[in-house]
Amino acid sequence: MYNLLKGKRGIIFGALDENSIAWKTAERVHAEGGVFVLTNAPAAMRLGNIDALAEKIGCQIIPADATSVTDLEVLVDKAVEILGGKIDFVLHSIGMSVNVRKGNHYTNQNYEFTEKGWNVSAVSFHKLMQVLYKKDAMNEWGSIIALSYMAAQRVFPDYNDMADNKAYLESIARSFGYFFGRDKKVRVNTISQSPTATRAGQGVKGFGGFIAFADKMSPLGNATAAECADYVVVMFSDMTRKVTLQNLLHDGGFSNMGVSQEVMEMFE
Amino acid sequence: MYNLLKGKRGIIFGALDENSIAWKTAERVHAEGGVFVLTNAPAAMRLGNIDALAEKIGCQIIPADATSVTDLEVLVDKAVEILGGKIDFVLHSIGMSVNVRKGNHYTNQNYEFTEKGWNVSAVSFHKLMQVLYKKDAMNEWGSIIALSYMAAQRVFPDYNDMADNKAYLESIARSFGYFFGRDKKVRVNTISQSPTATRAGQGVKGFGGFIAFADKMSPLGNATAAECADYVVVMFSDMTRKVTLQNLLHDGGFSNMGVSQEVMEMFE
Amino acid sequence: MYNLLKGKRGIIFGALDENSIAWKTAERVHAEGGVFVLTNAPAAMRLGNIDALAEKIGCQIIPADATSVTDLEVLVDKAVEILGGKIDFVLHSIGMSVNVRKGNHYTNQNYEFTEKGWNVSAVSFHKLMQVLYKKDAMNEWGSIIALSYMAAQRVFPDYNDMADNKAYLESIARSFGYFFGRDKKVRVNTISQSPTATRAGQGVKGFGGFIAFADKMSPLGNATAAECADYVVVMFSDMTRKVTLQNLLHDGGFSNMGVSQEVMEMFE
Amino acid sequence: MYNLLKGKRGIIFGALDENSIAWKTAERVHAEGGVFVLTNAPAAMRLGNIDALAEKIGCQIIPADATSVTDLEVLVDKAVEILGGKIDFVLHSIGMSVNVRKGNHYTNQNYEFTEKGWNVSAVSFHKLMQVLYKKDAMNEWGSIIALSYMAAQRVFPDYNDMADNKAYLESIARSFGYFFGRDKKVRVNTISQSPTATRAGQGVKGFGGFIAFADKMSPLGNATAAECADYVVVMFSDMTRKVTLQNLLHDGGFSNMGVSQEVMEMFE
Repeated sequence: MYNLLKGKRGIIFGALDENSIAWKTAERVHAEGGVFVLTNAPAAMRLGNIDALAEKIGCQIIPADATSVTDLEVLVDKAVEILGGKIDFVLHSIGMSVNVRKGNHYTNQNYEFTEKGWNVSAVSFHKLMQVLYKKDAMNEWGSIIALSYMAAQRVFPDYNDMADNKAYLESIARSFGYFFGRDKKVRVNTISQSPTATRAGQGVKGFGGFIAFADKMSPLGNATAAECADYVVVMFSDMTRKVTLQNLLHDGGFSNMGVSQEVMEMFE
Repeated sequence: MYNLLKGKRGIIFGALDENSIAWKTAERVHAEGGVFVLTNAPAAMRLGNIDALAEKIGCQIIPADATSVTDLEVLVDKAVEILGGKIDFVLHSIGMSVNVRKGNHYTNQNYEFTEKGWNVSAVSFHKLMQVLYKKDAMNEWGSIIALSYMAAQRVFPDYNDMADNKAYLESIARSFGYFFGRDKKVRVNTISQSPTATRAGQGVKGFGGFIAFADKMSPLGNATAAECADYVVVMFSDMTRKVTLQNLLHDGGFSNMGVSQEVMEMFE
Repeated sequence: MYNLLKGKRGIIFGALDENSIAWKTAERVHAEGGVFVLTNAPAAMRLGNIDALAEKIGCQIIPADATSVTDLEVLVDKAVEILGGKIDFVLHSIGMSVNVRKGNHYTNQNYEFTEKGWNVSAVSFHKLMQVLYKKDAMNEWGSIIALSYMAAQRVFPDYNDMADNKAYLESIARSFGYFFGRDKKVRVNTISQSPTATRAGQGVKGFGGFIAFADKMSPLGNATAAECADYVVVMFSDMTRKVTLQNLLHDGGFSNMGVSQEVMEMFE
Repeated sequence: MYNLLKGKRGIIFGALDENSIAWKTAERVHAEGGVFVLTNAPAAMRLGNIDALAEKIGCQIIPADATSVTDLEVLVDKAVEILGGKIDFVLHSIGMSVNVRKGNHYTNQNYEFTEKGWNVSAVSFHKLMQVLYKKDAMNEWGSIIALSYMAAQRVFPDYNDMADNKAYLESIARSFGYFFGRDKKVRVNTISQSPTATRAGQGVKGFGGFIAFADKMSPLGNATAAECADYVVVMFSDMTRKVTLQNLLHDGGFSNMGVSQEVMEMFE
């Protein structure tokens, strides 16, 4: 629509199905002139229909387990080769809690599950950046984004250990963002998005009530996956070059609400 | 009970009636061995029964309009004289919005009222500290506290222009706190308290619904005025000498909640 | 360059001279297809050369004292008439401290000056929004931005009472942003920009040392006025519709730095 | 001195040597009338001289590896038995990064080391609380504190992966604090302390320059280990019952400084 990403190359993680934020982002980045490879874990690929997306857009898929440094190295090498140059943008949209899946309450964690969720949801972001950094695979003024959620700052009881994983993820964005900024002029941010009815979101217990509450609290209502994709596009573009180490709230105003009129009236 | 404030002298603003946080603080400070003068605006003194408090405790009242630098100068001089030495602790518990009183919506402010509320609720804190600073009336390691509310950070629709006043108040605490700390070793903090059923609180429209919402959101429930008084005492004591420029949340956990189970269930 | 603002109408406050962020914003908005009127206080107009900007762009100037509700009403009426429809974007870039100008230290304020600076720098933002809101002069999904500075959150000793004014300004953005969002689908945000060598910035004592410190602390260096203009453009565009009530840090990463290697080495 | 903890029972982790914050805390808690058991990992016990502390105070040591749920279960059972009742206060003062010890830069992590540091420094806090919660071993209005550091919010380059661990730790405090508060009336907070010349602190590269920088930035100077112990005591006491889910900054004001006069002058 605006050619905001013309001439830019990237990697997009986590496009599972047409409800995914990563899926919407891929469509929007494509419309804005960006080229990219898609990637996902082999297991996630079987669950969704990423092939349909790749075919529609005309891009390649490189399967990679984001917890495997070797897989990430291969991914980055292949992406640079396929796209014909260094990378300008990366979207990390990966998250999974085994404790949530297995129905373990936050006060009754299985710590092997905790470790696995942390590794997949948070450490994968460090591994990805470490590979990109060591290979010097990012162009100057490139942009790296991970999707986060406000449970990193405040308590949402059913979000379970994903809250702690997101806090760790956002800390990685700051810690690695410093070195990536100073040494390579690359910016690193997280986007903290409204609760969104993706496959991952729907796995959270009580998700319906939760999404309704957030919508009623937010002056502009919840942000959708498509709107998030727009926001990711501007954060990939050259219009936001000096925004870094930030956690960017994209939530219709939820994060700065104490209470809305509508919610308060239910308590009167 | 513990003699936490033995030998310390202070000034307490804003004890209107027995529901006031300042009233409870005066009682607790007295019980902990601190001596002090009470002060309030002449108009506020007629509304409440501060005389009863002063008599019970055996302390003096010095009326002062906190928007008048002259009144504050007289107050500080007299306090030092009456108490027999420099000041160790000060509680600023002053707030009033004419727009709230007159029922003007936030989107329909009368700006003379806005200015008056700002002057009373926020600038009075600067004036007070400027007088104390210029007169060198605080002892080293003294402690100055103003009461605030979380509307300074997040939207509570009925809190009206008091939200902006509290944001300004908290900023003064940081700005002046720097100079008071560096030059006089005095700490300056604000305490952000749960909604409390004081006379001032009850003036806010829809206060009942609001206090119920906050209570249901807070894992420990709302903090009471008496509990706030305890917290003020420790912040006046020698046990917290290196805490400064902070906005201290005293709210049963409300500030870091996204949503509680109980609130969310109303939306399912 | 991208046509991001094609078909959009706006009002830009505060373009003093070619170093102003508002000046750069006007140029960038124009290049992106937006149309607008410029406005400034009569006194400020005499200091700068806003006429040259208006001529270059081919837009009109409507002088207005932003502390006068009447002036703002005339401004909004004329802007709608000249531009041929409701407003889509507004930039508030106004700030001035009489205490700073007169060299009064923060601990030695003249409170008439304090009131004047607060009125010009912060209350003007409320007045502007109240006029826009009452006249229903904003289009749905319009965007209102005020420029702020991080002294609203942290102490920068020479920033004086402008720190408190910015805290109040940011609070207005949240408080009014709630009603503007809920009732009119308009978003309201502040942008907290790196220290910038504008006319206003240069008035701050010790500005040189300060800008050097910020640059050395920021992994990407200080953000320039031109880069800030880019960021304002995306915040005016349809790509960021669900971002509201936020204070957006545009600072090369400064805000989330504890210390940089370069700064720390000076202390070893 | 004040008998603030008379009749209270607790567990103190991490007293390595006389510079440790946990060591100072043990001494202060003892002086305030609290009784407790000390605990540390067997390896840490060999490094320090915890026996001397236990002897001086007349308390028992129960060695426990805080990453072992079994060890924690034994510890809690024994503590309740030895102390003669449920627990009122717990100090978690545990942190260690293998990447730091081995000299691996943040951009060159060994992920086995990363996992180990995370497990020791952060997950141990969850495990501890899960054991206390399941065993219902805490008294109502008990207080659990973990020591943290501001690297959880802002970048301190040499703090390495401990920054991410502290972010995760603080998130656990909120997440578990919600359930512990709601279900057991127990509060959970972290204290974010000035850089302190403990054994752990001294392991961080460039620690000298760093501690000097923090001291020059803080209006009251860095907080010492002894002052931190005082602050822990009040947070254990009944005077702070409604403070929960908070990260409490105990840092002489550092956290809310943008820059101090003294630091800025080095850049002029």
